[in-house]
Formats: sequence, structure tokens, C-alpha cells
Amino acid sequence: MTAPQRPSLEVCLSPALLHLYDVKNSIVVIIDVLRATSTICTALYNGAAKIIPVASVEECVHIGRQLGAITAGERDGKIAPGLEYGNSPFEYPRDFIAGKTLVLTTTNGTKLLHMAKDAIQIITGSFPNISAVCDYLAAQGQNVILGCAAWKDRINMEDTLFAGAVVSRIQQHFNVNCDSALAAFTLYQAARHDLFGYMRQASHFQRLSRYGLEKDIRYCLTPDSANVLPLLKNGELVAAQ
Amino acid sequence: MTAPQRPSLEVCLSPALLHLYDVKNSIVVIIDVLRATSTICTALYNGAAKIIPVASVEECVHIGRQLGAITAGERDGKIAPGLEYGNSPFEYPRDFIAGKTLVLTTTNGTKLLHMAKDAIQIITGSFPNISAVCDYLAAQGQNVILGCAAWKDRINMEDTLFAGAVVSRIQQHFNVNCDSALAAFTLYQAARHDLFGYMRQASHFQRLSRYGLEKDIRYCLTPDSANVLPLLKNGELVAAQ
Repeated sequence: MTAPQRPSLEVCLSPALLHLYDVKNSIVVIIDVLRATSTICTALYNGAAKIIPVASVEECVHIGRQLGAITAGERDGKIAPGLEYGNSPFEYPRDFIAGKTLVLTTTNGTKLLHMAKDAIQIITGSFPNISAVCDYLAAQGQNVILGCAAWKDRINMEDTLFAGAVVSRIQQHFNVNCDSALAAFTLYQAARHDLFGYMRQASHFQRLSRYGLEKDIRYCLTPDSANVLPLLKNGELVAAQ
Repeated sequence: MTAPQRPSLEVCLSPALLHLYDVKNSIVVIIDVLRATSTICTALYNGAAKIIPVASVEECVHIGRQLGAITAGERDGKIAPGLEYGNSPFEYPRDFIAGKTLVLTTTNGTKLLHMAKDAIQIITGSFPNISAVCDYLAAQGQNVILGCAAWKDRINMEDTLFAGAVVSRIQQHFNVNCDSALAAFTLYQAARHDLFGYMRQASHFQRLSRYGLEKDIRYCLTPDSANVLPLLKNGELVAAQ
């Protein structure tokens, strides 16, 4: 008798590489650390009823009006014209967001989410909910693809580091035969003692710093401050019960 | 007065991402460490007149016949039917290859080379000629893209490590604002004290090991044993004078 094959754990560092992976037979984790998936878990942790991710500002305005929901999204670091709120997790405290529906438009994360629509299950991950993500993945016994949203298809450091952190935590439950996973793992091991310091060298850090968002970055790199699991169901992200 | 802007140094980890880079205004280094670009510099170092990289076995046979040249290439780790030699650098010692023309077909490296055809200049790089590559790039004052051939568009470790080694050596001459370059640099720093040992975890190592090619891998990871600069001129790779 041979031992049962463990499911595979792979990392996809850019949406432009997702076609190389077997999405249909995998759980896909959407990773957009700065800041979409950090904000998503934070809003759900603080009691948001659901979050509807949409691609365009127009769609956001339209659905927001239909549902009487909160609309949010940024373009080039500013709240997009026509929307009410931005991408910062600090805009969604419990006394504001509890019980409400948030319609959120982000460029990189939403694109990847739509590309992964045939997956067994889509969830979102970031450092604020890393334990919830890892516990879920380890328990499912399914193949996993950690999908980095990247920046306009360019590989970015923050999403890669989060993928590496997840690999570090759960690899013993999986068969890992993927050089992107090995790369992410090694990068996380090299950076983990000072993630924020290491991230200072990254391109997106420099972009966001110009907008005065270092507090956001620090939060988005901190584990388990909003430890809930966002699951995509019928196009809406809800907290797993 | 502002200081003159240094040229940019970027890393492209897969041919599927090359469209995101400004190829036309850059020197592109084709990197296919296991084993095409290691074999290319070795054959030129040992006196080959030139190397003609082609995409298909048929083209290889055809051009080889036309020129009376040596034909070489592998598919799935074996010499492809119709060709005479394989991809191992050890097949091209001086007493065999000096003065001759080699027509070489490889899948990943040749594909990238054709995709980069509009570059200012195309060169090939691998550990056996790393110093020649770095000296050339540092002296040109041009933008540089380190282009990893990868494995069927999947990011691979050996090409990433070589890109990181080049970044480590020449970054002070460039403006490096590219998370893939930062990732490659960090990976190389983590692995450099035992490249061969680190590579044991990589997917391609395992693939080649099954074919008994550990000696090849060790050679392909060793710096400066064939320190010549292959330049693409009119579709042919020749040693820079």
C-alpha cells in the first residue's frame, strides 16, 4: 500500500501566471496585502454583513445605489470620484461597519478574484487573518493555490511574503513542489524578523509612503488582528461561521 | 543640478511577464541556467565559431544540414530524435567544438530569446560566465532586464538565483526599483553559501536528478568556468571580442 498522496500547495506570484495552475481543482486564496484583503477581513471582523468586490468604479456606484450600501475604492491613492470611502482598514471600525454591506472596488485583487471563479472555493488572505486562513486550508485536504494579486501583473513583495508565511505554517500538510512556493518561503524566512523594515525596500511601500500610509502598512503586516475567514459565496465575501 | 539618472535594472521571472517590461529600451540577458545558457557560454569559451538558437527540432535539423553544422537539443531529458548531441555542457570540449557551428534547440530559452528580439542587445548569462555578463552590463550605461527563461512559463529557482547573483554584483551602478529584483537578490543572499544544497529543494533539480545530471547541475552553478560573453548578432550567438 502506498501512503495517500497529500494535496498540493502552490504559489502563483502574478495573475498573468494563473493560467498555468489547475484552478478548477483547488482552493484559491486571493492575496492583496496592501490593502484590499487586509481591509476585507477587517471590515468582516468588525461585523460587516458582507462585502461585494467589483471591478469598476461605475459598477461600485451602481450596486451601492441599488442596495443602499457603502461604496469604497481608490484610484492612485485617493478615494475614487463618486465613491464614499477608501481602501484603508482604519476606515471600517465596528461602530461604523457592523451590519452593513460594503461594495468595494480594487484593481488588482478584484481582477484575480474574477479570474479564479472556477475554483473549488475562493477565500481571501492577509496578515491580519493569517491564522484563520491557515487553519482552514490545513483542515480541508484539498489542493491550494496561494494567488498573489500583484501590482498590474508585476510581482510584488508584500503578497509574496504573505504567501511565504502561509507556506511556512502549513507546508507539512501538503506536497510542495513549486519553486514559487520555495521562493516565497525563503523570502519570508529572510524577512520575518523585521517585515516592516524589509518592506521599506519594496516598490509599493514607497508608493504608499508618499500618500502617508505607513500606519496602514504596519497594520497590514501584523498577524491576527482581524482573524476571520472571508469566503466568496455567490459573488459576495462573507465571514465563515 | 540633479545627478544624472542611473539606468534601471529589473528582473523578469517568466517569459509570460515580459510584456510588462520596456524591452525595446533595454539590454536583455537571457537566463536558462539548467542548461541552455550554461552550455552556450561553454561551447563559445571552448572555441565554437557560433551558436544558432532555434525553436524546433525540425528547424535544427534543417539548418544543421544546410550549414553542415552540429545539431543539438533535448526533449524530456533525452537527445531529440534527428539530432546528434544533447544539452550538457560536458558534450562540448575544445577538441570537439573549436571552430564549429552549433545549431541548438531549447524550449524555454529560445522562446524568450525570440520574444526579446527588439531589445537594444541580447546576451546570455549563467553562472559559468557571470563575471563577463556583469562587467559588460556595468559598463554599458543602459537599462537592463534580466530575463529568466523559467520552465514552461513557471518561475524556476535556478534562473531566479542567477538573476539575484547579478543584482548583488552590479546594483550599485543602477536604479533598482523592482520587487522581482529585490526577491531575486534576497534569495541569492539566502542561498549563496550553498547554492547546490539549496537547489536540492527546487523542482528542476529533482527533474534533472532523475536523469543522472547532478554533475551538470554542479557545473552550471559554478561561477566563471567559461567566462565569455555571448552576444546575439543577426540571430547567431558569438563570443564578444
